[in-house]
Amino acid sequence: MLQERVLTGDRVTGKLHLGHYAGSLKNRVALQEQYDTFILLADVQALTTHFDRPDVIPRHLREITLDYLSAGIDPERATIFVQSMVPEIAELTVFFSMFVTVNALRHNPTVKAESKSAGLGDMYYGFLGYPVSQAADIAFCKATIVPVGDDQLPHLELARKIVRRFNELYKPVLVEPRPLVGDMPRLVGTDGSAKMSKSLGNAIELDSTAEEIAYKIRRAKTDPARVHKNDPGHPDICPIYAYHQAFRPGESAEIREGCEKGTLGCSACKQLIAGALERLLEPMRERRATYAARPKDVDDLLMAGTLRARAVAGETMKEVREAMCLDYFG
Amino acid sequence: MLQERVLTGDRVTGKLHLGHYAGSLKNRVALQEQYDTFILLADVQALTTHFDRPDVIPRHLREITLDYLSAGIDPERATIFVQSMVPEIAELTVFFSMFVTVNALRHNPTVKAESKSAGLGDMYYGFLGYPVSQAADIAFCKATIVPVGDDQLPHLELARKIVRRFNELYKPVLVEPRPLVGDMPRLVGTDGSAKMSKSLGNAIELDSTAEEIAYKIRRAKTDPARVHKNDPGHPDICPIYAYHQAFRPGESAEIREGCEKGTLGCSACKQLIAGALERLLEPMRERRATYAARPKDVDDLLMAGTLRARAVAGETMKEVREAMCLDYFG
Repeated sequence: MLQERVLTGDRVTGKLHLGHYAGSLKNRVALQEQYDTFILLADVQALTTHFDRPDVIPRHLREITLDYLSAGIDPERATIFVQSMVPEIAELTVFFSMFVTVNALRHNPTVKAESKSAGLGDMYYGFLGYPVSQAADIAFCKATIVPVGDDQLPHLELARKIVRRFNELYKPVLVEPRPLVGDMPRLVGTDGSAKMSKSLGNAIELDSTAEEIAYKIRRAKTDPARVHKNDPGHPDICPIYAYHQAFRPGESAEIREGCEKGTLGCSACKQLIAGALERLLEPMRERRATYAARPKDVDDLLMAGTLRARAVAGETMKEVREAMCLDYFG
Repeated sequence: MLQERVLTGDRVTGKLHLGHYAGSLKNRVALQEQYDTFILLADVQALTTHFDRPDVIPRHLREITLDYLSAGIDPERATIFVQSMVPEIAELTVFFSMFVTVNALRHNPTVKAESKSAGLGDMYYGFLGYPVSQAADIAFCKATIVPVGDDQLPHLELARKIVRRFNELYKPVLVEPRPLVGDMPRLVGTDGSAKMSKSLGNAIELDSTAEEIAYKIRRAKTDPARVHKNDPGHPDICPIYAYHQAFRPGESAEIREGCEKGTLGCSACKQLIAGALERLLEPMRERRATYAARPKDVDDLLMAGTLRARAVAGETMKEVREAMCLDYFG
């Protein structure tokens, strides 16, 4: 039996933070032990929103690679590769676009939200089609498993439909992927807003120093009803409690009790999580420093991963062309 | 000064006929003497309408190549190449799609007509975007001249806009093409309908035998008002007169006079044009037979043309990636 292949990745538009770690990166480190893991540096997809400032992409390409390596992604096990350097993905995107209707794309929730605010007509053609491009990301390497959050399930459903349609129209050479839905809810920002995000200024980056962690946790919002240390708190609305759940799950029941009874003050509670985050990020910083000191090696491993992805892509495209009758010269 | 480059081509969905010859092929034979001529076998574009029957494409790929060679395209001068074998066109299509709005595509007259009948939502995403793909066909080889019919001017205008936008956003590495508008009106079908078209069954293919030419001309519509030989005719509504104009321009004034005065009967008039067409197509049939007997040579010249196109594409994409900051490893 063929080993299962996981496809996952990130848009190359910003450094990774604790939200990425809790939501996907930690899981990838575990997945790479079990599956042939492909990790996509989605620079072409980044262009759907950043085409007018592509200069942010090269910088983040290396930073995110360092994020991966520091978090424990092993380049000997996982294939980290650059989307724009696999032209087969663009070719497959173009082929898929022939039999996907504009309506199928408008039903994508992200596209829907965008089309409500901007209008379908004013939307960029590439943005409208990014789920087609995602289907190509998955199909070119015949990934069987795609880790997703709840919010991305409709994207994956479309990718599955596209693969099925291709296989019906031509020959069953592509593989229908299945979602692996994560059990981690989205990590809240330090300001209590629903999503930790660099652009909202409420994120703790994976390369944060001990001082940065301490500072950001100290300034993080807590339950506004707790004015005095001994006031009973409401942990479910407190980002600090969410961090305990995410990063100290074994101790979160105890934290809840202390908060609700008013026996654990916010300051002490924050110190506990800050300490835990420092224990999590400190070895990451060390691994990061080791790799950051060898930029040539990092480039080499990106090149090697990209070459591996291209080899796989070449095999798939041979079958795709044959299935589509486009293999004119054998 | 760099030599000017012409980009032209055909969708690979059917054999070529007299309409193609009069409208573009004859002109290309002349252009190849003056310009570096690239001729695109647009198989990917053919998929926008034929994705569910791609088996027609391989057959027509060779037939159209024979049409080119038989009509006098010289593979030593012109670069005949296969669109799907130049992945850089797909890459450039994807890049261009980032900054072209859905509205800009809807204004394309062909797309507009289609969206009126089918609705924008039911349209295939790839069909909606085919003018973007055409812009990539032109831009990848930095064509300076694109021969077009009146009806295709809006496509070219969009391609020019896309190139200008790319050059503004990034760096001026692409070349704005200019249209070369043909002076030949569209050739009418033998049934008198506005357009000669294989699918309408009113076409005379370039590989027609003398018998086929004679038969089709004999059965062609003429002025229905001419019941008797000496009735005065109306050449402007007669397809046979249109053929005289297209293929015997020197004699067309005489034909008009004979028709209008009722001194030239339809049968004699048809024999004159059938003879002229046979004199035009007979040497084409001979050249075709020579090449058709050497299918390996035809494949080889397609491969050679495609390799040449890929080399040009590689050079352009190097500049494109550098301009877009996507040349990560130098």
